[in-house]
Amino acid sequence: MALIARSREIIAENADDVQAARKADAPAAMIDRLLLDDVRLEGMADAIRVVAALPDPVGVVESGWRVPNGLEILATRVPLGVIGVIYEGRPNVTTDAAALAIKSGNAIVLRGSRIAERSNVILGEVVANALAGAGVPTGAVTMLGTDRDEMLEMIRAEGRIDLVIPRGGEELKAYLTENARVPVIYAASGNCHVYVDESADLDDALAIIVNAKTQRPGVCNAAETLLVHRAVAAEFLPRAAAALSHEGVEIRASDAAKAAMGDAGANVRLATDEDFATEFLALVIAVGVVDSVEEAIDHVNRFGSGHSEAIVTRSLAAAQAFQHGVDSACVYVNASTRFTDGGEFGMGAEIGISTQKLHARGPIGLADLTTVKYLITGTGQIR
Amino acid sequence: MALIARSREIIAENADDVQAARKADAPAAMIDRLLLDDVRLEGMADAIRVVAALPDPVGVVESGWRVPNGLEILATRVPLGVIGVIYEGRPNVTTDAAALAIKSGNAIVLRGSRIAERSNVILGEVVANALAGAGVPTGAVTMLGTDRDEMLEMIRAEGRIDLVIPRGGEELKAYLTENARVPVIYAASGNCHVYVDESADLDDALAIIVNAKTQRPGVCNAAETLLVHRAVAAEFLPRAAAALSHEGVEIRASDAAKAAMGDAGANVRLATDEDFATEFLALVIAVGVVDSVEEAIDHVNRFGSGHSEAIVTRSLAAAQAFQHGVDSACVYVNASTRFTDGGEFGMGAEIGISTQKLHARGPIGLADLTTVKYLITGTGQIR
Repeated sequence: MALIARSREIIAENADDVQAARKADAPAAMIDRLLLDDVRLEGMADAIRVVAALPDPVGVVESGWRVPNGLEILATRVPLGVIGVIYEGRPNVTTDAAALAIKSGNAIVLRGSRIAERSNVILGEVVANALAGAGVPTGAVTMLGTDRDEMLEMIRAEGRIDLVIPRGGEELKAYLTENARVPVIYAASGNCHVYVDESADLDDALAIIVNAKTQRPGVCNAAETLLVHRAVAAEFLPRAAAALSHEGVEIRASDAAKAAMGDAGANVRLATDEDFATEFLALVIAVGVVDSVEEAIDHVNRFGSGHSEAIVTRSLAAAQAFQHGVDSACVYVNASTRFTDGGEFGMGAEIGISTQKLHARGPIGLADLTTVKYLITGTGQIR
Repeated sequence: MALIARSREIIAENADDVQAARKADAPAAMIDRLLLDDVRLEGMADAIRVVAALPDPVGVVESGWRVPNGLEILATRVPLGVIGVIYEGRPNVTTDAAALAIKSGNAIVLRGSRIAERSNVILGEVVANALAGAGVPTGAVTMLGTDRDEMLEMIRAEGRIDLVIPRGGEELKAYLTENARVPVIYAASGNCHVYVDESADLDDALAIIVNAKTQRPGVCNAAETLLVHRAVAAEFLPRAAAALSHEGVEIRASDAAKAAMGDAGANVRLATDEDFATEFLALVIAVGVVDSVEEAIDHVNRFGSGHSEAIVTRSLAAAQAFQHGVDSACVYVNASTRFTDGGEFGMGAEIGISTQKLHARGPIGLADLTTVKYLITGTGQIR
């Protein structure tokens, strides 16, 4: 694959981006998202292979039936047309998004961020060459420049752009909500929660919160808030605080949570409502104590962004209440929120995680880049 | 059903609306859409019965699988939440939309137009009473007033309204494109085409264009343009012009179409590009001649609104080319465009016909008023 054959060049261009970002004092999470190495390039190549091997979504007859007058109706999957993707510092989005768009029969317009410009330019060139070699029309993958005017033109190009997927934070979302005239699916922020129920296996709970918070803190499915049932707070929170601190996590705790931490909470800062509403994307966590699974659900629905939440419990009733009561794309029982990912879900690469309810929710996969056309065949039917 | 039991009251209120509309010189198509009689009320009641009898879309597991690490993933249908519907003069939308929203577990906010205010108020009251009797929470169906401020508040109520469906013309669509901050599915205009191929059965073609144009000219799936292949224009167009004129249809024809009509075209006005782009919603039709199915496809994709188009043909190749080449929600072979309708499709009542590609395309049925939530169950999995 060209991506691997040209890995030296790609990593060299990326290193320039990374160096410039470091010089500009970019936050560690941003640099983590930007960085490419052999392992990540291999992961990108694997994602393309997985997408290539997926069944072609175009032409699939989703459903078909005959109505009493004899008309035959086939709901058939067709490409959306032209898809725009706006993304920030993760260069793997370039190849993931291009692979998904081409596999689903769409053209794609990519608009990366300035911080990853060199990486994206070479990745775009590698993709374009590979596609030209395979006979895909030129222009099927287009890379926009990084100034805001081009982005504004794209998000107002009604009738020429069929869908824009912004992958970014709340600021980008607010900008598009205000300015976009084309259809948009928000792949927005993830203020994800882990709730440790009174009946939780506390070893599992510890492993899950440490994993969800620290395994890759810069991504949207990382946990940002830990909620603990009051009945197990005094037993669990000292262990959790110690383990998280050990991993370098800064803890911001409610009064009750801080008190339950005992000695481990001595230097812990008090959490504000704003902390509970924040997607830190860093080694920071907000910690609260709740009296019931219902209070946990209310907290999640109030502060969450509708992305991914987990309950750790041995109670079937608590698991069911949480899964049905929480209004988020992905609701986990006894697993880390980090699994919200097209690859982990077995969908191949994803083009983002949708936190909206329309068209696509959760990992945006291949089928979500298509629409339905009704093909209706008759023998002269009239009403 | 309360709708039938109270039909005298409803028809009396509707008659006041109709009288006021006539006094205000409302167009005939608008009055047709507004008018309620026993037959239409029975149709509305039937639509509710069909919806009530449909399988419950909520809780359906769309797909489910286990990934290699043992996580079980269930993609489960859940209600969207709160749906807003903005509609014009058709009071049946009040009951159709309420039935679909309640059946799919949603709350609904209805915003009808001033012209149908009395009809909508009594229909809303009938629905609310019926729901209260069935134990549905008060407020599940809410009727807004008809001033623009309330509508603006609704379409900017991010986080409180999950979807707005405007059913109206291009003006309403433009207003929402500019002002809405909540997700919108446009149930917009239908500039629908019938294309008569060179291989068409001309008797079928005649029946289909007369039906598509005249059976109910005030609705979005009525035909607005007739395209005829040059090879059959001289044979077909005189018959079509005579039959359409006989039904009171005003014809606006291209030069070639007018010429092919012979004597029948003597008094026919020439069509402009604007005529081809217009959804007349009245007994007016634009007529053109094309040299090939490809030219017909190009014409439809240029002037159409992506709603419903029909080809009349005996050629399999032409049928396939038209169905695949035309970028519309519903593409018919040898049938009237008038079948684009949730009821005719067997979906029960519909809440509108979507001319956009995202989330719902074509008749918006029950499942389109839901979203998916991923319920993921593990045994302590971490990444």
